[in-house]
Amino acid sequence: MIKMNNQEKNSISHSKKEEIYAKLEEVYKLEKDSFIKMGVPENDAKICADVLFEADKRGIDSHGIERLYMYYIRIKRHQQNPITKIDIIRDKGAIARLNANNGMGQVAGHIAMDLAIKKAKQFGIGMVVVENSNHYGIAGYYALMASRQNLIGITGTNARPSIAPTWGTEPIIGTNPLTIAIPNDMEFDWYADHALSIAQRGKIELYARQNKKVPKGLVIDINGDNPTDANQILKDLLNGTAALTPLGGSGEDLGGYKGYNYALLVEILSAGLNSANYLKNCIGIEIKNGKKIDVPYNLGHFFIAIDIESFVEIDYFKHKIGDMLRMCQNSRKQPNAEKIYVAGEKEYLIEQERIKNGIPIPKTTQYQLLQIIHELNLDQKSYKINWNVKYDPLKVDSQGW
Amino acid sequence: MIKMNNQEKNSISHSKKEEIYAKLEEVYKLEKDSFIKMGVPENDAKICADVLFEADKRGIDSHGIERLYMYYIRIKRHQQNPITKIDIIRDKGAIARLNANNGMGQVAGHIAMDLAIKKAKQFGIGMVVVENSNHYGIAGYYALMASRQNLIGITGTNARPSIAPTWGTEPIIGTNPLTIAIPNDMEFDWYADHALSIAQRGKIELYARQNKKVPKGLVIDINGDNPTDANQILKDLLNGTAALTPLGGSGEDLGGYKGYNYALLVEILSAGLNSANYLKNCIGIEIKNGKKIDVPYNLGHFFIAIDIESFVEIDYFKHKIGDMLRMCQNSRKQPNAEKIYVAGEKEYLIEQERIKNGIPIPKTTQYQLLQIIHELNLDQKSYKINWNVKYDPLKVDSQGW
Repeated sequence: MIKMNNQEKNSISHSKKEEIYAKLEEVYKLEKDSFIKMGVPENDAKICADVLFEADKRGIDSHGIERLYMYYIRIKRHQQNPITKIDIIRDKGAIARLNANNGMGQVAGHIAMDLAIKKAKQFGIGMVVVENSNHYGIAGYYALMASRQNLIGITGTNARPSIAPTWGTEPIIGTNPLTIAIPNDMEFDWYADHALSIAQRGKIELYARQNKKVPKGLVIDINGDNPTDANQILKDLLNGTAALTPLGGSGEDLGGYKGYNYALLVEILSAGLNSANYLKNCIGIEIKNGKKIDVPYNLGHFFIAIDIESFVEIDYFKHKIGDMLRMCQNSRKQPNAEKIYVAGEKEYLIEQERIKNGIPIPKTTQYQLLQIIHELNLDQKSYKINWNVKYDPLKVDSQGW
Repeated sequence: MIKMNNQEKNSISHSKKEEIYAKLEEVYKLEKDSFIKMGVPENDAKICADVLFEADKRGIDSHGIERLYMYYIRIKRHQQNPITKIDIIRDKGAIARLNANNGMGQVAGHIAMDLAIKKAKQFGIGMVVVENSNHYGIAGYYALMASRQNLIGITGTNARPSIAPTWGTEPIIGTNPLTIAIPNDMEFDWYADHALSIAQRGKIELYARQNKKVPKGLVIDINGDNPTDANQILKDLLNGTAALTPLGGSGEDLGGYKGYNYALLVEILSAGLNSANYLKNCIGIEIKNGKKIDVPYNLGHFFIAIDIESFVEIDYFKHKIGDMLRMCQNSRKQPNAEKIYVAGEKEYLIEQERIKNGIPIPKTTQYQLLQIIHELNLDQKSYKINWNVKYDPLKVDSQGW
């Protein structure tokens, strides 16, 4: 097997022209079949595919089909189990604590939010935490599970260390999303799914592909400066000589300590109430006899569901939240602004567009998908996808996850 | 009664030299006595004073004794009731919904968090919302009620409209704090009490007093610009021709939509699950027959308590959170940074200093306190405070709240 060099990798670079658009059902089918072939039981594979697919539809491309390869590599190198065995460690009234036994984060998340919803229906609110888990995809998926049943859904997870605390330069806190979905009377659920850094690595990659400067303040380097060269930043982030800044920036002037503290809040709710790893320890690597070995990430997540009907009539609530959102949309705009959006609106518009035009798949991702199809002995012809790269089994890239 | 003009007001301006330092017990006594004389029942007055006093000790001066005058004026003009009658609207399992009948926000908050804690001890988590309430002081007070009993405390409230949504310029969302306190094995609870704007009005006032430019991005004006002249900004904020920006700023580049959405989350949790006012309606004014009249604010709050021992052993938790905080403190610093702080640390250091040196009271506040003492027939000599302004009953300022 030959590893691609950088030049070859760049030749498979992302650009609008090089994307293909795949039909929704073909994307979902490929995702589901792949998970099954990786050893994920069929019902679990449907959940895992569904989580990716939700991101695909909503335009959160960093967490859609582009991520399939990451799960593939981690299962392939036995870093996480395709089979998810859930142990109940604690179960008391409105709360529970689960152990996912290093299985699929998506399956653990689905079971945990389902349980939080059940508890909320009984007690008004429910909270479930999970330990010994893995990357669970878009947090929004689980929040939406609740909002689609007329509950408020809140979830978060810890993640690989990326953010530096205020006045720091070392990446020690995950981009830790704090994510909420709330039903209302509009066409879409209010849906805020945000990392607590200003931007995620994927955004820096986008600036690099577009040959654009990174806005000052998204990243802090070892000298305490805010670099803007996207390619250099990507290298420095990998080396740990630069870090993402928390929401609010690297200092105190623009409130950076708030983003830092909220990222820590998510860390504490995800990993404090169980046996999960935290902060710098969430790297999936241990040094044994001077050698780096892949070990389980042992991530933690939390899930909170709030039963609206325990407090007020659901129609009253939906209408009131809708009114709040319309008040935002109709408020005075900046002179050059087109529109004031509310959370979930852009994702809803993208979904409508993608239902018509399909899901874009850049060449790098196509190559990885073809590798998965090839290595898992899936039938490439069974997916009606007009690939515009050709797979060469001698040139594979299993790096980077 | 003669209203002061601006020149006279400025002559009583804040400056280090013009502050006096009052002993802690004298400040608390004056706060408590004042609330009692305003008609607040003694036990409730102790709570109200305690909430102010907590802010005094921790250096959150915008919410300490400086705020006594605001409550005084609101009670005096019958905009809020000094007596707090609490009705239970819903009570089911781990949740409850209370009506504070336009009483004291502090008393409602104390009762509500107390109930959330009781429910958390029984069910693992508890959540209580309050409607028909008023300004409840520092949110941190209620979060600390929980953390001091080995629970996680989370609270928030809506407030007068101040923040513009992303791409907007109109102040429609309150500075809505999202506030958390978490026990650990250090000398102080981890304590994050943050408005979801970059800065609050009080911060702009501080820049004005110090004759400093406001950092670009804290405020957005009607033209979509980020003004920096503190005095002009204060006027524009009052007129509604400028607004505070959400954490992350007025656009999308630095993640401003995240702060906007989290501020809305606090609005929804505070005012969605009950009958409270929301957003632009939280101004305490109605127009009747072409005349502005003061009406109840009808604010909403929420209180969540999480019982740590339902999930893990308390000592394990405290030690683990302590380790997380020490990992932050000891991480790589910016070259010019003195120290990496964790939330609650600065407040703890200020408290140690104030126990020794007392609580600073600027001249404007002294003048208002002397007015309260005079008008409520309190005995000025019973407070061992070395006032350095002289009260003139012909020159009072009852404006601005």
